[in-house]
Amino acid sequence: MSRQRVFTADKLREECGVFGISGNEDAAAHTALGLHALQHRGQEAAGIVSFDGRLFHSHRALGLVGDHFSNEAVIGALPGHAAIGHVRYSTAGAPLLRNVQPLFADFAFGGLALGHNGNLTNALVLRRQLVEQGCLFQSTSDTEVIIHLIARSRQPTVIERLIDALSQVQGAYALVALSADALYGVRDPLGIRPLVIGELDGAPILASETCALDIMGARFVRDVEPGEVVSATLSGIESIKPFAMPPRRFCIFEYVYFARPDSAVEGQSVYEVRKRIGAELAREAPAPADIVIPVPDSGVPAAIGYAQAANLPFELGLIRNHYVGRTFIEPSDRIRHLGVRLKHNANRSTVAGRRVVLVDDSIVRGTTSTKIVAMVRNAGATEVHMRVASPPTIHSCFYGVDTPERSQLLAAQNNLEAMARIIGVDSLGFLSLDGMYRAVGGAPRDAFQPQYCDACFSGDYPTLLEDFGHGGSADQLSLMLEER
Amino acid sequence: MSRQRVFTADKLREECGVFGISGNEDAAAHTALGLHALQHRGQEAAGIVSFDGRLFHSHRALGLVGDHFSNEAVIGALPGHAAIGHVRYSTAGAPLLRNVQPLFADFAFGGLALGHNGNLTNALVLRRQLVEQGCLFQSTSDTEVIIHLIARSRQPTVIERLIDALSQVQGAYALVALSADALYGVRDPLGIRPLVIGELDGAPILASETCALDIMGARFVRDVEPGEVVSATLSGIESIKPFAMPPRRFCIFEYVYFARPDSAVEGQSVYEVRKRIGAELAREAPAPADIVIPVPDSGVPAAIGYAQAANLPFELGLIRNHYVGRTFIEPSDRIRHLGVRLKHNANRSTVAGRRVVLVDDSIVRGTTSTKIVAMVRNAGATEVHMRVASPPTIHSCFYGVDTPERSQLLAAQNNLEAMARIIGVDSLGFLSLDGMYRAVGGAPRDAFQPQYCDACFSGDYPTLLEDFGHGGSADQLSLMLEER
Amino acid sequence: MSRQRVFTADKLREECGVFGISGNEDAAAHTALGLHALQHRGQEAAGIVSFDGRLFHSHRALGLVGDHFSNEAVIGALPGHAAIGHVRYSTAGAPLLRNVQPLFADFAFGGLALGHNGNLTNALVLRRQLVEQGCLFQSTSDTEVIIHLIARSRQPTVIERLIDALSQVQGAYALVALSADALYGVRDPLGIRPLVIGELDGAPILASETCALDIMGARFVRDVEPGEVVSATLSGIESIKPFAMPPRRFCIFEYVYFARPDSAVEGQSVYEVRKRIGAELAREAPAPADIVIPVPDSGVPAAIGYAQAANLPFELGLIRNHYVGRTFIEPSDRIRHLGVRLKHNANRSTVAGRRVVLVDDSIVRGTTSTKIVAMVRNAGATEVHMRVASPPTIHSCFYGVDTPERSQLLAAQNNLEAMARIIGVDSLGFLSLDGMYRAVGGAPRDAFQPQYCDACFSGDYPTLLEDFGHGGSADQLSLMLEER
Amino acid sequence: MSRQRVFTADKLREECGVFGISGNEDAAAHTALGLHALQHRGQEAAGIVSFDGRLFHSHRALGLVGDHFSNEAVIGALPGHAAIGHVRYSTAGAPLLRNVQPLFADFAFGGLALGHNGNLTNALVLRRQLVEQGCLFQSTSDTEVIIHLIARSRQPTVIERLIDALSQVQGAYALVALSADALYGVRDPLGIRPLVIGELDGAPILASETCALDIMGARFVRDVEPGEVVSATLSGIESIKPFAMPPRRFCIFEYVYFARPDSAVEGQSVYEVRKRIGAELAREAPAPADIVIPVPDSGVPAAIGYAQAANLPFELGLIRNHYVGRTFIEPSDRIRHLGVRLKHNANRSTVAGRRVVLVDDSIVRGTTSTKIVAMVRNAGATEVHMRVASPPTIHSCFYGVDTPERSQLLAAQNNLEAMARIIGVDSLGFLSLDGMYRAVGGAPRDAFQPQYCDACFSGDYPTLLEDFGHGGSADQLSLMLEER
Repeated sequence: MSRQRVFTADKLREECGVFGISGNEDAAAHTALGLHALQHRGQEAAGIVSFDGRLFHSHRALGLVGDHFSNEAVIGALPGHAAIGHVRYSTAGAPLLRNVQPLFADFAFGGLALGHNGNLTNALVLRRQLVEQGCLFQSTSDTEVIIHLIARSRQPTVIERLIDALSQVQGAYALVALSADALYGVRDPLGIRPLVIGELDGAPILASETCALDIMGARFVRDVEPGEVVSATLSGIESIKPFAMPPRRFCIFEYVYFARPDSAVEGQSVYEVRKRIGAELAREAPAPADIVIPVPDSGVPAAIGYAQAANLPFELGLIRNHYVGRTFIEPSDRIRHLGVRLKHNANRSTVAGRRVVLVDDSIVRGTTSTKIVAMVRNAGATEVHMRVASPPTIHSCFYGVDTPERSQLLAAQNNLEAMARIIGVDSLGFLSLDGMYRAVGGAPRDAFQPQYCDACFSGDYPTLLEDFGHGGSADQLSLMLEER
Repeated sequence: MSRQRVFTADKLREECGVFGISGNEDAAAHTALGLHALQHRGQEAAGIVSFDGRLFHSHRALGLVGDHFSNEAVIGALPGHAAIGHVRYSTAGAPLLRNVQPLFADFAFGGLALGHNGNLTNALVLRRQLVEQGCLFQSTSDTEVIIHLIARSRQPTVIERLIDALSQVQGAYALVALSADALYGVRDPLGIRPLVIGELDGAPILASETCALDIMGARFVRDVEPGEVVSATLSGIESIKPFAMPPRRFCIFEYVYFARPDSAVEGQSVYEVRKRIGAELAREAPAPADIVIPVPDSGVPAAIGYAQAANLPFELGLIRNHYVGRTFIEPSDRIRHLGVRLKHNANRSTVAGRRVVLVDDSIVRGTTSTKIVAMVRNAGATEVHMRVASPPTIHSCFYGVDTPERSQLLAAQNNLEAMARIIGVDSLGFLSLDGMYRAVGGAPRDAFQPQYCDACFSGDYPTLLEDFGHGGSADQLSLMLEER
Repeated sequence: MSRQRVFTADKLREECGVFGISGNEDAAAHTALGLHALQHRGQEAAGIVSFDGRLFHSHRALGLVGDHFSNEAVIGALPGHAAIGHVRYSTAGAPLLRNVQPLFADFAFGGLALGHNGNLTNALVLRRQLVEQGCLFQSTSDTEVIIHLIARSRQPTVIERLIDALSQVQGAYALVALSADALYGVRDPLGIRPLVIGELDGAPILASETCALDIMGARFVRDVEPGEVVSATLSGIESIKPFAMPPRRFCIFEYVYFARPDSAVEGQSVYEVRKRIGAELAREAPAPADIVIPVPDSGVPAAIGYAQAANLPFELGLIRNHYVGRTFIEPSDRIRHLGVRLKHNANRSTVAGRRVVLVDDSIVRGTTSTKIVAMVRNAGATEVHMRVASPPTIHSCFYGVDTPERSQLLAAQNNLEAMARIIGVDSLGFLSLDGMYRAVGGAPRDAFQPQYCDACFSGDYPTLLEDFGHGGSADQLSLMLEER
Repeated sequence: MSRQRVFTADKLREECGVFGISGNEDAAAHTALGLHALQHRGQEAAGIVSFDGRLFHSHRALGLVGDHFSNEAVIGALPGHAAIGHVRYSTAGAPLLRNVQPLFADFAFGGLALGHNGNLTNALVLRRQLVEQGCLFQSTSDTEVIIHLIARSRQPTVIERLIDALSQVQGAYALVALSADALYGVRDPLGIRPLVIGELDGAPILASETCALDIMGARFVRDVEPGEVVSATLSGIESIKPFAMPPRRFCIFEYVYFARPDSAVEGQSVYEVRKRIGAELAREAPAPADIVIPVPDSGVPAAIGYAQAANLPFELGLIRNHYVGRTFIEPSDRIRHLGVRLKHNANRSTVAGRRVVLVDDSIVRGTTSTKIVAMVRNAGATEVHMRVASPPTIHSCFYGVDTPERSQLLAAQNNLEAMARIIGVDSLGFLSLDGMYRAVGGAPRDAFQPQYCDACFSGDYPTLLEDFGHGGSADQLSLMLEER
């Protein structure tokens, strides 16, 4: 018997979401709610650290926020008016509790908790130097490098130490941090990962997306700017921009898949952008079909946009089973296509005898698409025209997204015709990179200085990749210790 | 702090789903898959009993199928070529493991396992008689009455004992049972609850809905007929109809909400019926609006039907959080409308400045509708016109559905105008009972002999209600024992 | 790797202890204490049922009393002024929760809980009859037969039904039972198992041994008499003797090993009897030695008696590790004699260069003795003379004691000389059966009508053995259901 | 309701035991056995780290060794030919998993695991300095100071870094450590805590006591010398003595209570020393009595020695319940003396009507003694003469033993007469400090340079107490983080 990972098995996976609040007497409960709204950004572990004016309190657990942070005992053990929280995927191997964030350390100046969305691209190089100097690492997380850099900084204040540490790292980071004195939020100079500021009855909030504000009825204030360090203390919010300021490069894939459709990031409604992507796709890649059906749920907004632009009926041709967990037994070959069937079923009455446009947000390995197309055909569709609401994904991401090896990316290994054959469709169409920029709504792509990070489509990485350039890899970060 | 039950909190709840398979060497694994596909029919407990030719093996657990029946250890401990399974809600109080089905008993003729979807309406009367005769009851389940009636029957064969027992009960039942010799399926004479026959590589299957066949690639054969007793042995499937045969009265609410949209029950696609319901609703209750938005997920098919018939755009104006569990802390009044926000968020960019038709499948207490309407208004909708894809729900169900007291049913206590005011909409429209029958697609409703069980709308109950008629209630079935 | 059962692995095992109290507002807490004091009578499971005037409350668990009944949550969920409890070994196979006592049933007259120490010798015959009549059994316990006999009795009162049921059974039983009206205690007509009456501030108590009274400062009142049925109600304690009254046959092995040394059973101090046994053994089987050492802890009283009678020094030549649990890994043959070493270690400084008398209470398989003797020799003892404080154990017990097959009983297969050679001692001596009777202190053994049940030594069984006589065996009592 | 800690509640508690083995293919399994034999030295947590030639593997758990390290899954996850292990008490507050040893760290030179028995007396001072320098502490354990000192050492080899680190600490330590290259053992220069070397089929072993050798049939080689650093590599065992060598000061209380009676420490059998202590006590403090009874189990050897010297019968007047766990409910004042009764019961038949000498190893708070004496009197003893097999305990220990505040030490607050009155005895006698030295067997106590650490009796501490001297206390070591 073998196990089959079924949940978002064939998607790129955002690795983290962060949340912080200060000046609210139910800080941990609100943080749990915010993390629940950000659950789509990381489903393997969650953690909250609160500060009660004297002590920090921490609870971290493998699993969903609702599994561990929805009962009174846990929330009651996280007292205080300020808290930060984190949801995460683990990048590799068994998820380990010691890697779950927020990380916490006792410094000479007191305690500091830190939650990080993104990924550093020189963590390995820095880690080697720090170990040489006598630093002891507890985790394999790149975030711990920041902790040690803060500990060894000779700067006098917490914020200056934080800036000192961050000035040494490369890569993507949206951070929330909590000290005895302040709640901090930072985005890297390129602004690759999102971070927004909100406010609830006077209490400042930081969150990866606006949906975490909506869940508690908080007001959206503004995005944290790229390279901005925000600190919220009793005397209000202060902002400084201590780093060099290159042009911004927000991750365009946040619009394609990562962010929730009801969020607005970098000033744009994700749902509306996705509908425009679908409309653009209908113009670029029309199809001779009777109905438009989405791969639920991520393909729905683009499919609605496609259907409206193409003036075709939008129908639920695939039904999703919402009770699906991560794994299920596949007892033998006698049970075929189990993985995808646990999550989806074709709606025979809708697709039988019809020519179908099947809309998905992206194609990674193509394995799920292949199974879904077969399922739709078995249910009687006469033609299947697949339309993908993003350009072909052909490069790895080093900024906090879990991408397969290039050898596993369908579009990195095959041309359009070969892909259509593998997936089994009558026709296949991707959105162009320019169409993508049009849908996002600003200027056409500037090839010398693209306005977004679109490296997964273009291979144009906006930062140095020190850890990855010389044959090194993050695997070398693993501890020598296997702990049960 | 108080807890808020958020999942389907304001819906009628089907109480059970059943599955059985015989002649397949992975019987328990297939049963687990079938139950997973039927998970929407009962989410509080699941159980499987297998038979290996010598011994029966049982595992029952509180929680989802995927939580308990997706690992090799559990499935490996359920060997054999035949198995039956059951998912359930508990009707009242703390869910107890001893009430989880399939029930099993050692009879003089050997073992028999039994899973029951539905509810008996004379269980209390029968139980009192049996206890007087020296029977010892282990559970508070009405199904155990059937077990004791089988044990005390003087009939010579298992199937005759089963028929003898069922001839004494009233109410709704779709049963699967497993003895050393055969797999059995029975529907009550009115056919209130669904049960279908499938086939996988020659192995006969019984399941509440066809979606449980699709998940494993099994073929749909036919519905079990009302009053039919099917038995599958090594020599094939046999069918007998031992009971009096009144006209059929299938539960019409299965089409409204209970069944999965990709299932076909009683010969009709649930999705297509729901779209026709939406179209009928658009004709009966048009609205001056810019967009049609569903309450996801149950309102989606009717909203698509409504939008197509009304020629209005279908949009996702409410986004559902799929990670929601059953409960979350509500730390204080400072967090408002928490229940609904854990599960839904209004999509501000879509509804702001627009007149909205909001489509839901049914209204029970109205509490969720009230919160959702407020949320849509807060997000900027200029008008909200609610359209409900069923008639007003004004009577309790005694046939295996968990309905609130009549005093809690919004439509039982208020006229249309009052309901619209409570919910806070600009206009409110329900589908008529005749419109419902039109959408289902057969003849107009025969008031003297309705073709469906529509008692929750009409109060016209198709069976005697012996346990409930004289002020008695199922609460008296509780054991004197509180067990941890 | 294989597992090694180390705890009392080579001892006969009493299968149960019972306790009951009525009229005390902390009834469940006192019952937990009483069971803790009786823990030596059964270590695999424990259960308590309380009655609060309206409902019965039950908690049963696999494991020690202190593991499950020492916290407020459990005790708080067992309210009421009356409670009974039970500790047990399982006789065979995996211990199953459904076999854990007290058993409880809802009868026509109300609830009744029952705890049983002993074993019925016609349970299988009765069970077959009851199943034929339509009774459904939930466990493999012989005690459930009594429950069904009560349920089917036509007698008008609880106590008359209880007596009616017991008049049909054979074997050994000391029972405590609890109904809404009374606390009951019964001993079988031969009085094979012990049961005493105590009193704490006016509240009547029933317990297997007096040590359960001492732990809570309760007063010993008297033994329940063989064949006596005691009932404690608000109007006081009543006693009836409804059965035929054969001469009493108390289990003599309770003095040898089962009972705790600080208990008094049937009017005699267990410690003093054991010391007299040791003294008698010194007279019957003297040894040319320097020191007397016990196999701790059960051999200690007899060794003290032996040492005093023989005028030899009593020394701790074996040290017991009190942290030993039931099992430990035995990774390979490279770790020798692991089982016994987990529990005992030879005290080298004491035994080296000395001639040792090694005193144990009994020999069953002889495997532990063999290992201990080797350990003492390895530690440097020059001679080892083993003296056993009971006659050779050569017959199985059918009265609630777990005895190995006769083929596994060392003394049933070998004469004295062969046993000494197998165990590896310089000499071996057992107490004679007459010496045993002398030590217990009454008249010499009456061969035609022995004053005690000494069947394990003599083969003289005091009851019919209906279940065992005709090739039948208790194995046939197993359910057809394997439940996880 | 309140909880009562009953297990060794009124004893000084050794805080740790250590074990290590190298060159054995079942290293972790043997370590588990060794820790099981050392369980009396620490019962709140246990941990093992193994090394498989490439990676270190760790498992640490709160609870007994047998609870967590006796199953194949755990041991199988600890592969390798070398392992070290640790059992511990926690000193204060809730036991925390992050404080459980062995500690492990990834250094620039590779991994190192460390287990520590003892306590440092300048850990707080060193910790403050290290935090100032940017070190991040993960635990509140003094042992982590050694880890950071190793990390920051500029020495080239592991052993030189270890020595460099230890040359900066004060206090008591018996250490085992494991690197990729070697197994290390170290005792502090005074040799306060024990550590022995053993050998099993060529594999070197380190253990706190010889009983850990006996359990696996290993050979005792010799004690590690005070101030000695032993390292076992493939090329054999090497020994160096890098520290200044003051006269040795072994903890004399190891003979009184900590060590197991079947162990030999510093060349002497613990059992024989205890018997000599009892004999010395009989000479110093005779009593007019009929029998000698021990407080089991720790008082047994001294009681045997006393009885033999006084020529009085040794009897079991108190019976111990070996199933006692750490806590039990004390539901109300109606249950009196519960704590002690859970563990002991007076043997009425033995003490009634007799004058009793009651022998215990030491008196700390006196609370248990008071309850036991009352229990013995209630059982009918006519006189109770308590004899204590050590001098009065009047000073705290700072070397790894959990001592109450001086205000709680009975002998620190009362003279002999007052103590006798509090405890309720007819007479009370302690062993003199000189008697103690006589029993241990060497020269009389040298008041200027005592041959043992007897600070708990004399107040003569053999090391500086930097952390404790200036009003500072180990409480300041607590982290700012409360982690669930």
